[in-house]
Amino acid sequence: MTQTTLRAAVVGSTGYGGVELIRFLLGHPNVQVTSVISSSHAGTLLSDGFPHLTEIIVDELDAVDVDLIKSKADVVFTATPHGVSSALCPKLLDAGLKVVDLSGDFRLQSGELYEKWYKHQPADPAYLQKAVYGLAEVFGDDSKGAEFISNPGCYPTCTVLGLAPAVAAGWIDPATIIVDAKSGVSGAGRGLSQLVHYSEINENFLAYKVNKHQHVPEIEQTLSRIAGKPVVTTFTTHLVPMTRGILCTAYATLTDKRTDEDFIEMYRAYYKGRRFVRIRNKGKWPATKEVWGSNYCDIGFSVDERTGRVTIISVIDNLVKGAAGQAIQNLNLMMGWDEWAGLEFTPVYP
Amino acid sequence: MTQTTLRAAVVGSTGYGGVELIRFLLGHPNVQVTSVISSSHAGTLLSDGFPHLTEIIVDELDAVDVDLIKSKADVVFTATPHGVSSALCPKLLDAGLKVVDLSGDFRLQSGELYEKWYKHQPADPAYLQKAVYGLAEVFGDDSKGAEFISNPGCYPTCTVLGLAPAVAAGWIDPATIIVDAKSGVSGAGRGLSQLVHYSEINENFLAYKVNKHQHVPEIEQTLSRIAGKPVVTTFTTHLVPMTRGILCTAYATLTDKRTDEDFIEMYRAYYKGRRFVRIRNKGKWPATKEVWGSNYCDIGFSVDERTGRVTIISVIDNLVKGAAGQAIQNLNLMMGWDEWAGLEFTPVYP
Amino acid sequence: MTQTTLRAAVVGSTGYGGVELIRFLLGHPNVQVTSVISSSHAGTLLSDGFPHLTEIIVDELDAVDVDLIKSKADVVFTATPHGVSSALCPKLLDAGLKVVDLSGDFRLQSGELYEKWYKHQPADPAYLQKAVYGLAEVFGDDSKGAEFISNPGCYPTCTVLGLAPAVAAGWIDPATIIVDAKSGVSGAGRGLSQLVHYSEINENFLAYKVNKHQHVPEIEQTLSRIAGKPVVTTFTTHLVPMTRGILCTAYATLTDKRTDEDFIEMYRAYYKGRRFVRIRNKGKWPATKEVWGSNYCDIGFSVDERTGRVTIISVIDNLVKGAAGQAIQNLNLMMGWDEWAGLEFTPVYP
Amino acid sequence: MTQTTLRAAVVGSTGYGGVELIRFLLGHPNVQVTSVISSSHAGTLLSDGFPHLTEIIVDELDAVDVDLIKSKADVVFTATPHGVSSALCPKLLDAGLKVVDLSGDFRLQSGELYEKWYKHQPADPAYLQKAVYGLAEVFGDDSKGAEFISNPGCYPTCTVLGLAPAVAAGWIDPATIIVDAKSGVSGAGRGLSQLVHYSEINENFLAYKVNKHQHVPEIEQTLSRIAGKPVVTTFTTHLVPMTRGILCTAYATLTDKRTDEDFIEMYRAYYKGRRFVRIRNKGKWPATKEVWGSNYCDIGFSVDERTGRVTIISVIDNLVKGAAGQAIQNLNLMMGWDEWAGLEFTPVYP
Repeated sequence: MTQTTLRAAVVGSTGYGGVELIRFLLGHPNVQVTSVISSSHAGTLLSDGFPHLTEIIVDELDAVDVDLIKSKADVVFTATPHGVSSALCPKLLDAGLKVVDLSGDFRLQSGELYEKWYKHQPADPAYLQKAVYGLAEVFGDDSKGAEFISNPGCYPTCTVLGLAPAVAAGWIDPATIIVDAKSGVSGAGRGLSQLVHYSEINENFLAYKVNKHQHVPEIEQTLSRIAGKPVVTTFTTHLVPMTRGILCTAYATLTDKRTDEDFIEMYRAYYKGRRFVRIRNKGKWPATKEVWGSNYCDIGFSVDERTGRVTIISVIDNLVKGAAGQAIQNLNLMMGWDEWAGLEFTPVYP
Repeated sequence: MTQTTLRAAVVGSTGYGGVELIRFLLGHPNVQVTSVISSSHAGTLLSDGFPHLTEIIVDELDAVDVDLIKSKADVVFTATPHGVSSALCPKLLDAGLKVVDLSGDFRLQSGELYEKWYKHQPADPAYLQKAVYGLAEVFGDDSKGAEFISNPGCYPTCTVLGLAPAVAAGWIDPATIIVDAKSGVSGAGRGLSQLVHYSEINENFLAYKVNKHQHVPEIEQTLSRIAGKPVVTTFTTHLVPMTRGILCTAYATLTDKRTDEDFIEMYRAYYKGRRFVRIRNKGKWPATKEVWGSNYCDIGFSVDERTGRVTIISVIDNLVKGAAGQAIQNLNLMMGWDEWAGLEFTPVYP
Repeated sequence: MTQTTLRAAVVGSTGYGGVELIRFLLGHPNVQVTSVISSSHAGTLLSDGFPHLTEIIVDELDAVDVDLIKSKADVVFTATPHGVSSALCPKLLDAGLKVVDLSGDFRLQSGELYEKWYKHQPADPAYLQKAVYGLAEVFGDDSKGAEFISNPGCYPTCTVLGLAPAVAAGWIDPATIIVDAKSGVSGAGRGLSQLVHYSEINENFLAYKVNKHQHVPEIEQTLSRIAGKPVVTTFTTHLVPMTRGILCTAYATLTDKRTDEDFIEMYRAYYKGRRFVRIRNKGKWPATKEVWGSNYCDIGFSVDERTGRVTIISVIDNLVKGAAGQAIQNLNLMMGWDEWAGLEFTPVYP
Repeated sequence: MTQTTLRAAVVGSTGYGGVELIRFLLGHPNVQVTSVISSSHAGTLLSDGFPHLTEIIVDELDAVDVDLIKSKADVVFTATPHGVSSALCPKLLDAGLKVVDLSGDFRLQSGELYEKWYKHQPADPAYLQKAVYGLAEVFGDDSKGAEFISNPGCYPTCTVLGLAPAVAAGWIDPATIIVDAKSGVSGAGRGLSQLVHYSEINENFLAYKVNKHQHVPEIEQTLSRIAGKPVVTTFTTHLVPMTRGILCTAYATLTDKRTDEDFIEMYRAYYKGRRFVRIRNKGKWPATKEVWGSNYCDIGFSVDERTGRVTIISVIDNLVKGAAGQAIQNLNLMMGWDEWAGLEFTPVYP
């Protein structure tokens, strides 16, 4: 292989997004992980907190030090919390590093909206403008050759991949969109809270942040861009007693008479060549387990003549297509590699 | 206690609804279980299939024999599959027994609709007319003194209790109602299928029977009765990797400007004196585990000014309020007892 | 009812043992819960942290104040952490209250052993001596009329009920006893730790505190008392991805040739009249779910001729027979009531 | 790449072992899957039953036809039930195909023992003798260059990898070995039974086939070979409410005084160069999730001075190291490839 190996660093290695990035990067043919970084655990072994990496990652965690990162890596993945990325990414970019940011800090073009929904100071507008929103299957190939990618959120990825073709085609009335989203618990991160206590969430199902989730403006910004006009949506998030997976059930009123077959054909045309999106046959809807551990987004439909509405079901693995996998996909596009390099994992079933 | 003890028989004792009925009847102060009945397992011990009943139910299972039932019982609970109840209940009624039927066979007034959604022959219209639809918190006390109760379905119970006050008050436009329902696996019964295989449904979430669930016409019939005009709804069912619990997320467009507080106050007034419905405070939405093992239905709200819609979250235990518990509640009303007799279980948490 | 109602207080109401005590006390015919107490949450509503108690427990949490408790209650349940009970219980006893302590502070007669395994200062020896170890099915009725009960630990209860008859009869060699114990996650309490994070323990099984668990000396003390000579055991604890339930698999070498039937007959004789212990038939072993939510301990056997060993399987619900239920049972014995008053719950299945 | 690609067929593709084999073979650098075979589903699409393979496996399932297999493949994996392999494998071998059999039909050298534990006719002794028992980390490289591999059982793999070095070194008394094994539900296969119904096994833990499991003679045969004398063991199997993973807790009496450190050092020496076995540091025991989806077997120790026993904890993913992964490892050894080719998956966590 004549390919030069790219050196990659992961900031936030002790979170779920971070270790998932490491899993994918370790299997990537063109990449070497040269630094795993954690502000809270620098100097310790990553495998102390994540024994599944025993004898796999044997180096100590580095501190967050831009000069050190610059000396070790060509590209940096920042799997850092909201409010941390907004300060760190500009420094990394200024040092000449390529950056893929997995936080929400560079997803919203409007600092005002960011402040309203995230309750944080927004990032510097100059860097907001530089950030490319990396939803490759929808926004052509904006990511190609980019230096700085803002990786989409897990809910927006699942929601928008499910709705984009229908909105773009004008087949549904954007004003009627309602998205009922359900996520596994890993989406809440590795931090501790009563909500993620096993005894509380096992054998339990609940809604949270109803009409208040910070992914709402990201979904609306993206659907508005596709629709070419402002879109406002109703979006509800629920917690499922499982670790991984997001399923979005989206409802909208049809603008004209269409069948399941129409939707299937049109979606397959829209996503032609995009192998991470799989459109299911008539009468089949995807389950989260069918994409578990993989970068796929699967989509199914049910047109209801009685109500004139379509129900669209889309699923992803929140830690893969909703985070680490999509970040690798964006890296591939940045570098001009095959979009699926290092991502050709078959879903793990059962 | 001067109360005469009522003798109860349970047909379908080897299903989940049946054993749950037995659990409640055993703890009921005015009832004695005098016959546990199973067409498929007659002559064997119930505790062979359900060892949790070891030393609790020690009699053999009886066959389905109307004369035998008549000799042993005053009231019969038929926790039998669709298509079995339609034939059995008329015979039990003709024998002078009181009947609470837990199947779907007597819930729809229209035989035509039944045939369309259930793909079975409907029951004799004469008996359809005799059946009282036992949703006590909504239909006043239709069940009081009745001889034959059709116990509501699990999804309709959760859906309608969540929507009835808003529909009755005209606060939402019935034409805009969309219900996204999620159920634990016990709702699918004890029968075997690939869908309920542990390895398939654990760590999985999926939609099923989208726009095709047989509870759709029951929900529409009931909401139409409340609205005083035909209501058509979009209704989606999902399977949650847990055993018990239903959560319904209902969406509708407001007919006028209202707040969360308005909804809370109005719902509390509507359900005044109905202790099995609990309305949550502003900003709180119920989780299924908070009613686990109990006869409660808990409800919470989120009015969204941005979209002019209200989101209503309601939860029940599908085997209790959605089946056995509501059946006992109906028995209490039939007999003129306290509505909550034998049902004052605190939810089991965690 | 001519029975005077006993007034009960629960200290530690915001833990899992505490809310489970409240569930049982609310259903007890002779008891009224007059004070729910929490050092950390005094002045707030219990239902804020445990919404399943909405409209059921409506009073604010009291602080831990002995005078206040004395004014409100006749008996106190202390569901408090190790190290807290040792200081609190003497004060409650001195105030003339009856006490059932659910901590480990009064279970070991030797302060030295306590210090070694619990890494805390032991309780005052005078009070250690007053504490009656409340394992009613084994120690006849020591609890009858007692003023101060030390409620056995969850693992010791399941282990000892499984082994006591065989040890007492001399059918197994106590020196060969090995106990492999498995517990649901609620046994670890409601406190937060990485170990109880849903995403870590779901779809996971692990051993913890191998040969180090603080219940080892309690098991050995109790088995030694039964054997009439010092017993040392190997005891391993594992965490199961479920909320409730303990299953102990105990292994021991037979002292003489015996069959499954011999064991079954002998155990049934030993536990005659003790309705919370159920001995299974030959070739049947209990599952944790078959006692879920109830005060039962179920036991099964497998004698292996090839190895000359017997395998004994015993199960309990750790929060009921292993904590709150057994505490109520002890209260019943203290008061001279039926042992099963308020505890006649059928296990919840499925 | 100058390597010729090996053509592989999988018989039993519609079972869990079969689809897991396909997942690994698809990622193997030297192999091409040329036929997926099912006696029960020939002519249909594999992705109809396993939608996670949509657009990944697009060919129809072949029937079990030795000539057809011979024309399409060089090596065959038989993931077929006990009793099927015994008839099929000889035919495949006679046709000149290499075979890796995942059933139990060729694991026991004694047909008599097979008949006693499996309740089937044993395989032809001539072929039993040809079968190489493929436990590479223990039996040096018996698999190297072999034509016919009998792939070890899931429980025996986990048990023997945990015990082999201690038995070989004479550090434990083989007569005292007791193994308490726990498995996820996928070990029971994809077939339907009440035992694997989600509602029955969720929130449940139980023992099954106590002293009767068909893996007992395989474990004893293998330990006897290592010990150089007959070994009889006590072995108990339990079902854990999770999909994948086996944890074995093995107990044995030390023959001499040893420490945890002694065991760790000795085991690391024994498994030197075998990268799929990882020995944990002192005081650390592996959890099943830490090897989830991977071919690792992780091992930890606890020597107890008080009892003179050692407790050894070993974990594997039952579908990988306990089935499909080990089968690929054996293929690699048969072909003279790197032992870890196509198996360098990082465990999936969380």
